[in-house]
Amino acid sequence: MKPTGIDLTTEETFEAHEGGKLHIGLTAPLNDKRDLSIAYTPGVAQVSRAIHTDPELAEKYTWASRLVAVVSDGTAVLGLGNIGAAASLPVMEGKSALFKRFAGLDSIPLVLETNDVDQIIETLVHLRSSFGAVNLEDISAPRCFELESRLIEALDMPVMHDDQHGTAVVVLAALKNAARVVRRELFSLKVVISGAGAAGIAVAEILLAAGIADVTLLDSRGVIHKDRRYLTDIKAAYAARSNPRGLTGGSAQALDGADVFIGVSSGTVPEETLAKMSEDAIIFALSNPDPEVHPDVAHKFAKVVATGRSDFPNQINNVLAFPGIFRGALDAGAKRITSEMKVAAADAIAAIAAEELGADYIVPSPFDERVAPAVAAAVIAAARAGMGAETERDRR
Amino acid sequence: MKPTGIDLTTEETFEAHEGGKLHIGLTAPLNDKRDLSIAYTPGVAQVSRAIHTDPELAEKYTWASRLVAVVSDGTAVLGLGNIGAAASLPVMEGKSALFKRFAGLDSIPLVLETNDVDQIIETLVHLRSSFGAVNLEDISAPRCFELESRLIEALDMPVMHDDQHGTAVVVLAALKNAARVVRRELFSLKVVISGAGAAGIAVAEILLAAGIADVTLLDSRGVIHKDRRYLTDIKAAYAARSNPRGLTGGSAQALDGADVFIGVSSGTVPEETLAKMSEDAIIFALSNPDPEVHPDVAHKFAKVVATGRSDFPNQINNVLAFPGIFRGALDAGAKRITSEMKVAAADAIAAIAAEELGADYIVPSPFDERVAPAVAAAVIAAARAGMGAETERDRR
Repeated sequence: MKPTGIDLTTEETFEAHEGGKLHIGLTAPLNDKRDLSIAYTPGVAQVSRAIHTDPELAEKYTWASRLVAVVSDGTAVLGLGNIGAAASLPVMEGKSALFKRFAGLDSIPLVLETNDVDQIIETLVHLRSSFGAVNLEDISAPRCFELESRLIEALDMPVMHDDQHGTAVVVLAALKNAARVVRRELFSLKVVISGAGAAGIAVAEILLAAGIADVTLLDSRGVIHKDRRYLTDIKAAYAARSNPRGLTGGSAQALDGADVFIGVSSGTVPEETLAKMSEDAIIFALSNPDPEVHPDVAHKFAKVVATGRSDFPNQINNVLAFPGIFRGALDAGAKRITSEMKVAAADAIAAIAAEELGADYIVPSPFDERVAPAVAAAVIAAARAGMGAETERDRR
Repeated sequence: MKPTGIDLTTEETFEAHEGGKLHIGLTAPLNDKRDLSIAYTPGVAQVSRAIHTDPELAEKYTWASRLVAVVSDGTAVLGLGNIGAAASLPVMEGKSALFKRFAGLDSIPLVLETNDVDQIIETLVHLRSSFGAVNLEDISAPRCFELESRLIEALDMPVMHDDQHGTAVVVLAALKNAARVVRRELFSLKVVISGAGAAGIAVAEILLAAGIADVTLLDSRGVIHKDRRYLTDIKAAYAARSNPRGLTGGSAQALDGADVFIGVSSGTVPEETLAKMSEDAIIFALSNPDPEVHPDVAHKFAKVVATGRSDFPNQINNVLAFPGIFRGALDAGAKRITSEMKVAAADAIAAIAAEELGADYIVPSPFDERVAPAVAAAVIAAARAGMGAETERDRR
């Protein structure tokens, strides 16, 4: 076990997982024949008949419209890799626990014993009346990109791969505040992202959506640029959209003069490379549990440092984002989680920390109770302002 | 709305269903960083890694091994017919509520927007690490027979179509006690079952398994016998196994001299036909909300009368069976719900009512708190005595 600043024994961790972490509860008592006649036969027949006549009523009279399916195929679980469906379930139960704790949202873990994108989509399409939104989790790249975009079309409900967009939203929030700390305009920053998997691509996407022009991606083979051969489709797309200065080479070339380093790679960066970054640099070393560079070292070269760990300041934790994002999307009756909604979520997170901003406080604590409601409100407003408004009118 | 003896307004029924009837709860608090580190990262990684190394540990450290999937495709919902997945969801939520209320069992409703048996099986096979048992519900005959038997093989976990076997178990329990009331040996009874759908076939199956030799099935075209043409596979199988006296014709021929009438048909039976039954006859008119014969009329010809309704004595309600059966099967680690387990469940239900037996008390009340634990214990014992014992040894 790597150090985390919190002293956990293996015994107590396993003990806490015995029997699983979730249970089902009833929203109303079932104490007598009358209760039974309402919740089950004959009363329930009236409700079922009404939904059969007017399918829109399912939203009002079932839990599906407020239920998130937490879906994984176990191919990229935490740092453990492809460990399969059954072994991923404790993580998905944990995710469901976080949905409940931070946004009061009900969710059910569904783990899939297939890695085939077509089969995953078919499975969820067959089940789509059972839930109101899908949180994809721990699904390997590049399959996760195709799966997410096809599911959004097929299910016509909020679908989000949290490893991509939850991370991206919190990174954008943190970067907005880091820019304030170093007194730079967000859009003027030169950003290097190390790692072009699920998180790296989504971070690039949201930074571009937020108006940052100079974003460069690195993968294990170096800088992604449009003349590089054998790029996957998604990397080729970002080769075209990013790296405006046409950089080539490796991390040393990319970081020369860069303002921001965002590591989502599980690699490491040599000190001499970080030394080439601009003055007042920003380093987000998010690999967990081993950051790309230790925060003490990063501070030699950067004014603001963030990690994914809870034992250092500025923890980039996507629990700041996903509970409020899904809560907002479901409450708004949105059928999509748009870029605008994600950027609005980042703004809301950043605004809370901005009240007491400092180099060691660019994002709120995961336990800051203001966060999820603020994120949900921002997402609802963005949904209503954009396509969401039309969608919602259609639904009512 | 048909009379049920309980005065329900449409308004209060709909109000009680607003937002659905279930919610998710956490088995342990998530109040601080330490809790979060145990339930989610980094703690959960240890648990996932352990399950990846030893898949048997999933039983101990996830909720799947104590979770029932309540599955329907919405093709035969209550008396409403094929109303589809979304409209069936309130019934499945109600079923989950009953599982929790009567056996403390967690379950999740999964409704399927496909009626294709292959696709339903594929969907559940993909998801099989997500739950520990499957309660099939409101699936039309004859598809339900093929679906259940193929799913039992494919999933290798307890699978039961409750409309078949839940009903059958309670019918057997009630019939055992009715036989005591009329002082007859169970195995000597001549039984006529009206209705050869999901429930009728399963009732025939359990009565045969319990040692009753003279069982005759009626469908809408009359007595099922082995010379009848155009029988479905399942009816042909029961034509061979039942009707030992080679009866032909309709209900009048079948009921002539019969001791027991069991209606699971939504049809009606003329008085003059019932008049032909033997002395001290037993009539179970289980169609809901309209019994095949009104209990007041049935009493003219029978000494013991039961219905499916809560406003008459002797309600045949499968809530007496399914919660304890699934609880027992899961607690025993059984991979099948065998005939022996079902018969044991019926014995347990019958034994509770036998303590205060009477013509108007052949089954316990649905709210008799002794029932589910007694059923679970009987099922566990049967599982351990039979194949279950081997299964369990294998698992440990």
